[in-house]
Amino acid sequence: MTLLIRNGRIVTATDDYVADVLCEGETIAAIGRNLTAPGGTEVIDATGKLVMPGFIDPHVHIYLPFMGTYAKDDYGTASRAALVGGTTTLIEMCCPSRSEDPLEAFELWKSKAEGLSACDFTFHMGVTRFDDDTPPKLRQIVEAGVASFKVFLAYQGFFGVDDTELYKTLRLAKELGVIVTAHCENETLVAQLQQKLLAEGKTGPEWHEPSRPQEVEAEGVHHLMTFAELTGAHVYIVHTSCDGAVQAALDARRRGVHVAIETVIPYLVLDGTYAQQPDFEGAKYVMSPPIRSADQQPLLWNHLASRDIATVATDHAPFDFQQQKEMGRDNFTLIPNGIPTIEHRATLLYTHGVATGRISLNTFVDSVSTQAAKLFGLFPRKGTIAVGSDADLVIYDPDYRGTISAATHQMATDYSAFEGWEQIGRPEWVTVRGEVAVRDGAFVGELGSGQFLKREPTHF
Amino acid sequence: MTLLIRNGRIVTATDDYVADVLCEGETIAAIGRNLTAPGGTEVIDATGKLVMPGFIDPHVHIYLPFMGTYAKDDYGTASRAALVGGTTTLIEMCCPSRSEDPLEAFELWKSKAEGLSACDFTFHMGVTRFDDDTPPKLRQIVEAGVASFKVFLAYQGFFGVDDTELYKTLRLAKELGVIVTAHCENETLVAQLQQKLLAEGKTGPEWHEPSRPQEVEAEGVHHLMTFAELTGAHVYIVHTSCDGAVQAALDARRRGVHVAIETVIPYLVLDGTYAQQPDFEGAKYVMSPPIRSADQQPLLWNHLASRDIATVATDHAPFDFQQQKEMGRDNFTLIPNGIPTIEHRATLLYTHGVATGRISLNTFVDSVSTQAAKLFGLFPRKGTIAVGSDADLVIYDPDYRGTISAATHQMATDYSAFEGWEQIGRPEWVTVRGEVAVRDGAFVGELGSGQFLKREPTHF
Amino acid sequence: MTLLIRNGRIVTATDDYVADVLCEGETIAAIGRNLTAPGGTEVIDATGKLVMPGFIDPHVHIYLPFMGTYAKDDYGTASRAALVGGTTTLIEMCCPSRSEDPLEAFELWKSKAEGLSACDFTFHMGVTRFDDDTPPKLRQIVEAGVASFKVFLAYQGFFGVDDTELYKTLRLAKELGVIVTAHCENETLVAQLQQKLLAEGKTGPEWHEPSRPQEVEAEGVHHLMTFAELTGAHVYIVHTSCDGAVQAALDARRRGVHVAIETVIPYLVLDGTYAQQPDFEGAKYVMSPPIRSADQQPLLWNHLASRDIATVATDHAPFDFQQQKEMGRDNFTLIPNGIPTIEHRATLLYTHGVATGRISLNTFVDSVSTQAAKLFGLFPRKGTIAVGSDADLVIYDPDYRGTISAATHQMATDYSAFEGWEQIGRPEWVTVRGEVAVRDGAFVGELGSGQFLKREPTHF
Amino acid sequence: MTLLIRNGRIVTATDDYVADVLCEGETIAAIGRNLTAPGGTEVIDATGKLVMPGFIDPHVHIYLPFMGTYAKDDYGTASRAALVGGTTTLIEMCCPSRSEDPLEAFELWKSKAEGLSACDFTFHMGVTRFDDDTPPKLRQIVEAGVASFKVFLAYQGFFGVDDTELYKTLRLAKELGVIVTAHCENETLVAQLQQKLLAEGKTGPEWHEPSRPQEVEAEGVHHLMTFAELTGAHVYIVHTSCDGAVQAALDARRRGVHVAIETVIPYLVLDGTYAQQPDFEGAKYVMSPPIRSADQQPLLWNHLASRDIATVATDHAPFDFQQQKEMGRDNFTLIPNGIPTIEHRATLLYTHGVATGRISLNTFVDSVSTQAAKLFGLFPRKGTIAVGSDADLVIYDPDYRGTISAATHQMATDYSAFEGWEQIGRPEWVTVRGEVAVRDGAFVGELGSGQFLKREPTHF
Repeated sequence: MTLLIRNGRIVTATDDYVADVLCEGETIAAIGRNLTAPGGTEVIDATGKLVMPGFIDPHVHIYLPFMGTYAKDDYGTASRAALVGGTTTLIEMCCPSRSEDPLEAFELWKSKAEGLSACDFTFHMGVTRFDDDTPPKLRQIVEAGVASFKVFLAYQGFFGVDDTELYKTLRLAKELGVIVTAHCENETLVAQLQQKLLAEGKTGPEWHEPSRPQEVEAEGVHHLMTFAELTGAHVYIVHTSCDGAVQAALDARRRGVHVAIETVIPYLVLDGTYAQQPDFEGAKYVMSPPIRSADQQPLLWNHLASRDIATVATDHAPFDFQQQKEMGRDNFTLIPNGIPTIEHRATLLYTHGVATGRISLNTFVDSVSTQAAKLFGLFPRKGTIAVGSDADLVIYDPDYRGTISAATHQMATDYSAFEGWEQIGRPEWVTVRGEVAVRDGAFVGELGSGQFLKREPTHF
Repeated sequence: MTLLIRNGRIVTATDDYVADVLCEGETIAAIGRNLTAPGGTEVIDATGKLVMPGFIDPHVHIYLPFMGTYAKDDYGTASRAALVGGTTTLIEMCCPSRSEDPLEAFELWKSKAEGLSACDFTFHMGVTRFDDDTPPKLRQIVEAGVASFKVFLAYQGFFGVDDTELYKTLRLAKELGVIVTAHCENETLVAQLQQKLLAEGKTGPEWHEPSRPQEVEAEGVHHLMTFAELTGAHVYIVHTSCDGAVQAALDARRRGVHVAIETVIPYLVLDGTYAQQPDFEGAKYVMSPPIRSADQQPLLWNHLASRDIATVATDHAPFDFQQQKEMGRDNFTLIPNGIPTIEHRATLLYTHGVATGRISLNTFVDSVSTQAAKLFGLFPRKGTIAVGSDADLVIYDPDYRGTISAATHQMATDYSAFEGWEQIGRPEWVTVRGEVAVRDGAFVGELGSGQFLKREPTHF
Repeated sequence: MTLLIRNGRIVTATDDYVADVLCEGETIAAIGRNLTAPGGTEVIDATGKLVMPGFIDPHVHIYLPFMGTYAKDDYGTASRAALVGGTTTLIEMCCPSRSEDPLEAFELWKSKAEGLSACDFTFHMGVTRFDDDTPPKLRQIVEAGVASFKVFLAYQGFFGVDDTELYKTLRLAKELGVIVTAHCENETLVAQLQQKLLAEGKTGPEWHEPSRPQEVEAEGVHHLMTFAELTGAHVYIVHTSCDGAVQAALDARRRGVHVAIETVIPYLVLDGTYAQQPDFEGAKYVMSPPIRSADQQPLLWNHLASRDIATVATDHAPFDFQQQKEMGRDNFTLIPNGIPTIEHRATLLYTHGVATGRISLNTFVDSVSTQAAKLFGLFPRKGTIAVGSDADLVIYDPDYRGTISAATHQMATDYSAFEGWEQIGRPEWVTVRGEVAVRDGAFVGELGSGQFLKREPTHF
Repeated sequence: MTLLIRNGRIVTATDDYVADVLCEGETIAAIGRNLTAPGGTEVIDATGKLVMPGFIDPHVHIYLPFMGTYAKDDYGTASRAALVGGTTTLIEMCCPSRSEDPLEAFELWKSKAEGLSACDFTFHMGVTRFDDDTPPKLRQIVEAGVASFKVFLAYQGFFGVDDTELYKTLRLAKELGVIVTAHCENETLVAQLQQKLLAEGKTGPEWHEPSRPQEVEAEGVHHLMTFAELTGAHVYIVHTSCDGAVQAALDARRRGVHVAIETVIPYLVLDGTYAQQPDFEGAKYVMSPPIRSADQQPLLWNHLASRDIATVATDHAPFDFQQQKEMGRDNFTLIPNGIPTIEHRATLLYTHGVATGRISLNTFVDSVSTQAAKLFGLFPRKGTIAVGSDADLVIYDPDYRGTISAATHQMATDYSAFEGWEQIGRPEWVTVRGEVAVRDGAFVGELGSGQFLKREPTHF
């Protein structure tokens, strides 16, 4: 179909201008002033609206068997929620346990999305074991279009790799030109601190943060940096929560390490007091790394404003408060980790970042869309508004005002971590490859229309 | 006139795609595939070429009475040289001495460019004195379209300001939303070290660097950072030559200081041994801050690759070797400072940065064009290829090979600091607001066609 | 006379053992077990007591014309107070204004002590101006036995030196082997922030700290470090109040700069809330640099425990609350700066440092006595308990408990900053060159018996 | 017996004065001027000589089954060599393999020293495995008088502990008040880099350093610091070779981590070129961590001069060049690690540190004697010259000049790493608990007279 978006304020990671965008088929055909369109073209008047590239969430969990339960969303609910929030591409963590076969896992994870997702999707391939059988399988997965790995320095024995596995994964990644995303917390310290706290009778959700203090995360990042430096691999630190961890990465970057830093939206807008709320309410805010003390927030915003932090993702891992979070009522280590945020990431970032003047509109687009596309081999197909790119567009109405609530959200979870929070603006129209998926803020897309995105390695 | 550039690889600070660009009058009208153009349109086939936004050199000296002589270029030679090198906009330092009236100086400097320059131009207004008369005059200059100041922490008594003047300049700049560019070297240490070296009989150009060691520059940056932090002013550090100076700025940025970092092309491609050449040959390489030891180069490239360094400028200050540099044969402090580089900045950066894989093409464009436009209020008129922007375009042929030589360069100086160096690629066509100024690498523009660019303050 | 101190626990900066100390005349003659003494020897039983070298306060003001008034103590009250607190040697700042002749000032300051002081004394010679006449006069003062200078980076126009004067002072000091002590705050920033705050109607003592924030002090230290690095001079940073300032010094030390760091007792035991007390009570706690926020305290203690901070002094500058502090009731910049602490420095450090386990007894002695002796050319005459050293001894009773109060203190001021605070232990006996000056905690010495200590340069 | 040392210049970590020292039995009885001694007292005239506390080497290997061979010295040769070099106390690493029982290992190691050593000795108990049986055995060993543990972050599977073992060891150490010494290199990175280099045909000793680069050591230190911070244990980093590793420790100390830093004499006087010598000569200089590039030396000296580095030890691990180093001729990973230095540590430090002015005499004594005594529970019995301390004394003749050579050294190895190097000064007389063990530079002691030193925990 043909779509003409008239007179919007087009904002990319760099640009900011008023023009028309003409989409033909799945891609952008032309950008200009007063473009003419053939008959049958749907015309959207974007006057006074922001036209931005579809957002990309580079860190979500949808199919997630974890801590004895399953994350609540499937690709139906998750992709609806994502699209309503302006996110047109999801990169899911494919996380087999150590005993699963990587190829089978990859097929399993893909099967959960194909035919159900309303937005495009791809995967970071979790490398949760590395033995002699691993390299050929990983090569096959890379050839199948997965250009990024995921390793866990935490969760040893389950997802986590040991140092030798880490080294070998990075060496293979370097050889293949594949970037390695990494969860950086020292597993042993977490396990020991958890035991110590529980032994002291400290069982509530308020003890989650002390069981994984900032030092544990900074240690993980420092560790990864040394391995990246000595292997030459390109790495990406997921869900960075504190300045110490960011600094460890920046120190390494100065020495030439290729490292990109992700934070996730909860760290920017929530602080540690949320997890300290009484009556187990804090459990809603349990994720790892934990939400930090309030003094870390301005530092994270500074790092984002300077683009030292490349991406703002979610680590969406949705668990119900009633049935699932409840599992850890008497033991914080049994609370399923995660905050459902796939839907409100960009809106929260706009509200608390752009509208407050902390970050520019260009940096907003860069961090919610462009950088993820560039780092993970989706660019320029995704992540920008340019001729030839996929017509994944968000028409954002900055004048909209609304309130976040579990009562109205699209996600499957029974609570919102941001219940009652005001939001500034919303995605009014969202398109995926030229098809309108959101209209007047409501999902009008088609489940199953999302495509698996084959990606090429990003560096050599 | 109308111009259609067909099928080029369009590269901006973010984007990279193949399309046609249609320019109507002075601006870009449309970007698309297979665009049609009205009769009379000049069509340039850019297949296999890079199409980039016109480069901006945010730090040049053209009219420069300095050290008892005048810099060699005028706007005729300088703008020809700039254009042949792909630079379509110059930002010159307007540097009155302490005894000159700022308004008169501004008019004087502008008069040197108007009617002569073949490319567009604007100025950083040098604040070389700050007394009660200063604020109204600076306000008037800002209203006239100059949205940036320049201060010198060096050259005390001539260009330099004292701490009280610095504070007041930054406070006024903050109030006006004007960014302050700063030359950061501790003046007193330079003066004392010069005296000490001369007293020891150390008079040759090889003693220039030891008279202004890295500590002196890092000290200047640290000093400025404290003043910026306490005033809230936005600042820009010109010609940063070493890692210590960069780190001082990055430390401050982490605390929320709004600071951007410039380096200049000589620091990236030359090292201290050039100034140590015998027979006064080293004098060709005398500039301030001085060219540093080779170990600083990879660190500067790392900082550029990560975009911690925002811009690569020139500090073009052209003096002849025979008559002018000669003035300091017996006393390095009398060698006119500067290396003529307005012509080869981008080509050298492409050759030593892009072609070697040190930086990406997008970062190349960002550092030679986009960041300068954004920081100094020229964006989106300049610095990008987007609908509505000025049709300042560089069509770069990456397959060209050539050799740099004073015999063939456009600058007025009698030597090239890069004599005999190979270059990879060149600007084949260059347009300024839709008019072709360079064709097949040769200047075909019109002297005097360049415009003074009125700019708005960039922040509040 | 002969004095035998039996069976005390002798503690120096390094040692800790039980023995007898025999003093003959002014010095220590022997240390051993079961020493025998000639008839007529006074014998003190120190069983269960700590025997430590007399404390040295390397930073006091006694004769101090400042801000239009005079500090309250003279050498009579000050030396009594010092001795009761275990301090047997004072190093006073000799601070002429820029218009005073250094030699005359030195004689003036010395005349205030001679014939009145009950403890020994010497001076840091303030270099508050440096012109062509200065070097011969400073050489003469050094020959007279003053082996340290003092410079102010603050108080420009009154005590403060400009950068050229600073450089020349450091060069001369390096030549003479004389250490330079320095007050490090950027004067201009203080002056401008003061003006800004007053203009905003912020006139109370709680605005003193915001007028001299931590950045201003760290800036001063960084500045001094660069000058020390390029001149090779040995420097000593007085009254360091915050981690940022300490770090700036430690970074330089790693590069080979010879720098020692002093803190003063108020920074270790008071926090910024004291100066924020209502009804002008905060004025009692106004000193410069200001007392900082509580988060700086543990960092200062850490730096002291690791001996990165060499000395704990006082910056004793006593002004009455009623008449003198009052001068600044409507304008915090007119509050005479200083907290009277000459009497309780060591007791407070023992109470809050040793008794709490923050620092060891050896570090206590090192910081209140030994380091000052070593840095300023008094060692081994002062600062240790060794054969041949002056018999300046403190017999400290760790079991004593008391309360600090203006009602009972020896200082001349009408208030104590520590009114009602508990103290752990006290100097029970104190000797100066073999003469008992304090007995059972009470002053029994002789005014005028103190000597001017001639010192030799400490390094070349 | 009774010994009177007359008129020497007594130097401790703090003091420096001239006096007589009277030793009765095993300890120091009195220090004074013109002491009288009973008949039969041996009198040594120390005029013009330095009298220092016996040196302590806190890091030696004597009984060392390692890499398929045994270190060359036994306690006979080692203690003779130590004493001739002024070292009167050895702290040996007791290093059982993972499969050995700790108690049996402790008895075995002790049995190698008892009855043979001519100097006093004690052990760091290597914790090379930590399971449920370990704590009671370690408690027993601590009760037997061993107040320090040793862990290896390197040599995994042999000496090395994993993170859980490390955590538990530190927790137990904290509980017991026992300091933990640690070898900090990331084992996995070493193993992988070794494999990579060998696979590339890089087999000579010059590849030893690249197989364990500075990053690997800094990573190990950073790792230990995080564990120490979260357990509160006191730690001691053995053989620190580079600034990056020192900085990682100092950063942690600032945050309150109790950490002491050791370097060893080879890092201060040798640089990486020694291991790069042809004809396998480099093998003589293979130790781990490796000797670093020359730029690290001044930084290590700076850290030592400021006492950030607490101790200068040896890591004495003597292997013959002919038979033993030879084992790795075709594979640098098979070269037994170690440089024989037990004999010349102090002399080299005096020659290259004190005589050159890099460190003071007091710092010399502190680093070769006092700090080791303090950190490891030997103080004040050892490590100082004070009444009641053991009469372990070194009478050092600063005017002696000699040459180091395998032909004349006491160690059992067939080469000296310092062959032909000049030495300044030597221990002329050395006593152990009042008995003369070295006279005129020659060993005159008695094998077997050395005692096992029972030590108490140092902190709680």
